[in-house]
Amino acid sequence: MDSLNEQLNFILELDKLKAVYRQALVKTDNNRQENSAEHSWHIAMLAPILLEHVCEDVNLLRVIKMLLIHDIVEIDAGDTFAFSKQSDLDAQHDKELAAANRIFGLLPESQFHEYRSLWLEFEAAESADARFAKAMDRILPLLQNMQNDGGSWAKHGVKKSQVLKRNQYLEGIAPGIWQYVCEQIDLAVTKGWLKDQ
Amino acid sequence: MDSLNEQLNFILELDKLKAVYRQALVKTDNNRQENSAEHSWHIAMLAPILLEHVCEDVNLLRVIKMLLIHDIVEIDAGDTFAFSKQSDLDAQHDKELAAANRIFGLLPESQFHEYRSLWLEFEAAESADARFAKAMDRILPLLQNMQNDGGSWAKHGVKKSQVLKRNQYLEGIAPGIWQYVCEQIDLAVTKGWLKDQ
Ligand SMILES: [Ca+2]
Repeated sequence: MDSLNEQLNFILELDKLKAVYRQALVKTDNNRQENSAEHSWHIAMLAPILLEHVCEDVNLLRVIKMLLIHDIVEIDAGDTFAFSKQSDLDAQHDKELAAANRIFGLLPESQFHEYRSLWLEFEAAESADARFAKAMDRILPLLQNMQNDGGSWAKHGVKKSQVLKRNQYLEGIAPGIWQYVCEQIDLAVTKGWLKDQ
Repeated sequence: MDSLNEQLNFILELDKLKAVYRQALVKTDNNRQENSAEHSWHIAMLAPILLEHVCEDVNLLRVIKMLLIHDIVEIDAGDTFAFSKQSDLDAQHDKELAAANRIFGLLPESQFHEYRSLWLEFEAAESADARFAKAMDRILPLLQNMQNDGGSWAKHGVKKSQVLKRNQYLEGIAPGIWQYVCEQIDLAVTKGWLKDQ
């Protein structure tokens, strides 16, 4: 099969991400569940918009690519709620690695390596690009929950300490946004949307 | 209001694109209608994947930004079917311009100008970046219709000449993909999904 056909097969496979539903609700669409494809679009938009607040050197194109692809593995592995217990999150990681091999494996060899590596870099969250990308993936649910009377936090009894930990990538990469997030988390505790623990 | 607050308001406004529904159907999700947010994610993925087939100099970051933002105006203006009559398409353009001013106007001044200009460049489809972006926006519905027994073409009695014209940006920017598209269009005529006119 030539490279164009492999690439178009991969593109068609991506359609399935539109059928992976998350905990987040779309307030503007009768509170239906959000799917991972539209979520990926939304966080890919966050990166260029918030770039000026980043205090480390990042490559915006790499960051956007990471955000566009970071959830593709959910086509096989499904979405796991962010605040699930650790054993569930570990099992999820193995499923996602197998998914990355299968789905990026639809691409021609060199693109398979490029996208699998980008996804692994995002998961490891060690490079500046990956930490910025992770921070964008995590701030959006916070913004959505603040708009939605605590949303998935309130529903699942999430603790302040869990949300702080989850958003901590911001502290190093974008201190101004981190300060804003800390204020929002305190506000959520005051409103009773997060447990003060 | 400081820039971070303006930027986050813009980001929250974008949620509404998840409630703008298009003619295309999501085959993998019980043939529900596709929304413009998940569509934008899908075509933003197309650009880096198909870049090697482009024979002009393009800036991939600009192309992806165009694709991520190109449908945001539909939050106010709604989606218009690609093969509507010309007077409807003209009226749509005025609504979209007003929408661009309002929605990108939520951003700080310099970003307002950046994104409004990018959107206008995409609409004009004259630069290489914009023609590549347009080509990606137009090839996806073709791929989807070919997977879906002619999809929106068959439903609305679309002609071969209309689809050829709509995909013609490919001819200059990516001749290899253009050839593939022409073959697919001929196949669609054979199957009775497009009128042979
Ligand atoms: Ca996820």
